[in-house]
Amino acid sequence: MSNTNDSKSNIIDGRALAKKIDERTAKKAEKLKSEGVFPKLVTVLVGDDPASKMYVNMKHKACERIGIFSEDKILPESTTEDELIQLIRELNSDKEVSGILVQLPVPKHISSQKIMNEIAPEKDPDGFHPVNMGKLMIGDEGLVPCTPKGVIYMLDEYGINPEGKKAVVVGHSNIVGKPMTAMLLNRNATVETCHIFTKDLKAETITADILIVGVGVKHLITKDMVKEDAVVIDIGINKDETGTHGDVDFENVSKIAKLITPVPGGVGPMTIAVLMEHVVLCAEMQMQK
Amino acid sequence: MSNTNDSKSNIIDGRALAKKIDERTAKKAEKLKSEGVFPKLVTVLVGDDPASKMYVNMKHKACERIGIFSEDKILPESTTEDELIQLIRELNSDKEVSGILVQLPVPKHISSQKIMNEIAPEKDPDGFHPVNMGKLMIGDEGLVPCTPKGVIYMLDEYGINPEGKKAVVVGHSNIVGKPMTAMLLNRNATVETCHIFTKDLKAETITADILIVGVGVKHLITKDMVKEDAVVIDIGINKDETGTHGDVDFENVSKIAKLITPVPGGVGPMTIAVLMEHVVLCAEMQMQK
Repeated sequence: MSNTNDSKSNIIDGRALAKKIDERTAKKAEKLKSEGVFPKLVTVLVGDDPASKMYVNMKHKACERIGIFSEDKILPESTTEDELIQLIRELNSDKEVSGILVQLPVPKHISSQKIMNEIAPEKDPDGFHPVNMGKLMIGDEGLVPCTPKGVIYMLDEYGINPEGKKAVVVGHSNIVGKPMTAMLLNRNATVETCHIFTKDLKAETITADILIVGVGVKHLITKDMVKEDAVVIDIGINKDETGTHGDVDFENVSKIAKLITPVPGGVGPMTIAVLMEHVVLCAEMQMQK
Repeated sequence: MSNTNDSKSNIIDGRALAKKIDERTAKKAEKLKSEGVFPKLVTVLVGDDPASKMYVNMKHKACERIGIFSEDKILPESTTEDELIQLIRELNSDKEVSGILVQLPVPKHISSQKIMNEIAPEKDPDGFHPVNMGKLMIGDEGLVPCTPKGVIYMLDEYGINPEGKKAVVVGHSNIVGKPMTAMLLNRNATVETCHIFTKDLKAETITADILIVGVGVKHLITKDMVKEDAVVIDIGINKDETGTHGDVDFENVSKIAKLITPVPGGVGPMTIAVLMEHVVLCAEMQMQK
């Protein structure tokens, strides 16, 4: 067939890059420990949603692998907002805790935004606190949302400089689409953000030099919606009886993309690698206080 | 000539709308005063730049007109960063002060971002504090940058709902372009942000249903760059020997635009009207504390 791209060479290997970041983080953690500072992540899980449990477990395993202390707080579904806030305040003032992660979603009777606002900004490895979001917006990127930061690392690793390129972000959530947009603007890309209200999605995505999709709709992006030689980053994770699928029709889009992330093995591993990096960054920030 | 738009009817009258907002703000201020709360703005000007002096004066005149107390702190050019921070801390803890506005730019030996970070978020009528920026980003709009908020009021007033529309913002500054982008995303527009690094500006602007320009380049946007029936908002203020000009070639673009703002008399008056509204909002927020 007349593919311009070798089907192997254009795949972005998220697992390999995540491993590289993990190694760097492990070294930093080691150095901190030799100085008497012990990075520690506390996760807080309210209720017993199986998917949330799985995600929390993955984070603890990553801590263990890298040499970061971690603690697992599990609260009953019936926990009140006030009780959860009380716990966060205790963790905020506990000098042994570097980072606090409240696993989302929280039960409906608790406001997730209120909870995010309570976590001390310097103990917020998820980067969801308004101060951290605001610093991101004005170009002072410290603790920022992990998934979009993972995408930036991928672009860096594969030599894609966003400056002057047309980037199209599909999805405008607070945890992925909006911070992704901000990071690309900080790097001087021409950025367009599309979402469920966008009238003609294909007319927009086809203009992208860099196309980043995170909406959770299996194979939303088909080959006809992608410009030849675009860089395609797929943040979607959609599970069904046939397996795990991205938001991009990988099989066909990979035939024309310059670079493309697979699902699984693309952005997924990067998110946790950035989270781990942020826990160490939290420990460093508190050291300097 | 075959204009589809009457040359008078498609002009957005910023002065009239600003007056309407001022009247609403004056009523709110009156009510607060009857309850014993006296909204007060303190401006801080470092050095004696004539343009900055003029802007500060305009703000004090607006306060007077609306019935808001104000105070004018003028510091010598030689003021150190520490001295300025010390003053801001005093104003932060002064219960009679509702809002603090440090006129930008500050002298080069002072970091404007450091200064913005020092102003208490609830006393920040300019909306530049990272907390206020972050809240804007996640859709919780309280004290937000005044110029983009003024643009949103204009769209509201003229019945332009951004949802589902293609909005193109030209300029990606922290005080105009980025917060404008965030406000349009919060209102579910498909938003594209262009700037000096954008390769083919015309190819992007021509797609806009709503085109918002704030870069400070006289007549950057010409008629051939604008889609027929677009709404065109001009934030630019460019003064030369022939007068004050916008970033849009008003004379020609107004022939095809559905709605367009003039310069002067467009966005300019809105910025101060929103600032005044924010000073009263600051007073209300501190009342609730």
